[in-house]
Amino acid sequence: MTQPAGLPPRTLYLDDLHVGQRFVSRPYLIETEEITTFAAAYDPQPFHTDPVAARDSVFEGLAASGWHTAAITMRLIVECMPVAGGIIGWGGEIAWPRATRPGDRLTVEVEVLEVVQSRSKPDRGSARLRITTRNQAGEAVQTLTPKVLVLRRNHQAERGP
Amino acid sequence: MTQPAGLPPRTLYLDDLHVGQRFVSRPYLIETEEITTFAAAYDPQPFHTDPVAARDSVFEGLAASGWHTAAITMRLIVECMPVAGGIIGWGGEIAWPRATRPGDRLTVEVEVLEVVQSRSKPDRGSARLRITTRNQAGEAVQTLTPKVLVLRRNHQAERGP
Repeated sequence: MTQPAGLPPRTLYLDDLHVGQRFVSRPYLIETEEITTFAAAYDPQPFHTDPVAARDSVFEGLAASGWHTAAITMRLIVECMPVAGGIIGWGGEIAWPRATRPGDRLTVEVEVLEVVQSRSKPDRGSARLRITTRNQAGEAVQTLTPKVLVLRRNHQAERGP
Repeated sequence: MTQPAGLPPRTLYLDDLHVGQRFVSRPYLIETEEITTFAAAYDPQPFHTDPVAARDSVFEGLAASGWHTAAITMRLIVECMPVAGGIIGWGGEIAWPRATRPGDRLTVEVEVLEVVQSRSKPDRGSARLRITTRNQAGEAVQTLTPKVLVLRRNHQAERGP
């Protein structure tokens, strides 16, 4: 499998993960144009697309779509947590305790909560993660606790039937 | 608050919602270019960005980022569920039971699970929703159970202090 330019080699296997392990991303600057462009495509509501109309909304100013915060978070996870075969999640609990605003510098911290070997498939297992996205003031703008697939070292990935 | 062109007027208040109520979206066609463009920005992994490399991944072919499925789902909710003041979620449980593939036609069904009046703020309440995103074969590609803010009719939204 080839890697996109600029990403680290995918070197982490299930064998390399342990509870309490942490990964921290670079900061990501989010600006007004990116917020409104994303929202025009995927969350076209005035508090995400129109800085003037947003003043009269419950956000009292432009706020990024929560799904935009989630997408940026994914970008930062892919960059800072080099899991072999990629980061593949089944889902989890997501929450947005605070809005992401234009000019925010977001960073992501990933903590490994649990590591489980698959009983039926010896080549893989799963990890439960706690992923916190914070702004430049250290305030959480998103929390996510996904379960992700992780391959074992020296086992070929099984293909479907 | 102004509305983006092409969206219905925002007419639903907490008073109008009831358990079991459903909203169904139009279909949304997702094609290869949209999948790879989204992924290049927000989930740059080969199984989302490169149809050839994706064949050798656990997806066995190009798959949309789960966050892309989530973003399209949000677009369709905004279009089909005209909540007054907009759709504003605190978060919830998300799962991707199946991959979204190029050429899929996604539809979203929203079901109201619970409607709760706020005890402290008379102008608002919340609703718990079950949102299922399906492909053209009727298979669920995403489930989401968010809690969303809903305003009451004839109450001015409270502003912050």
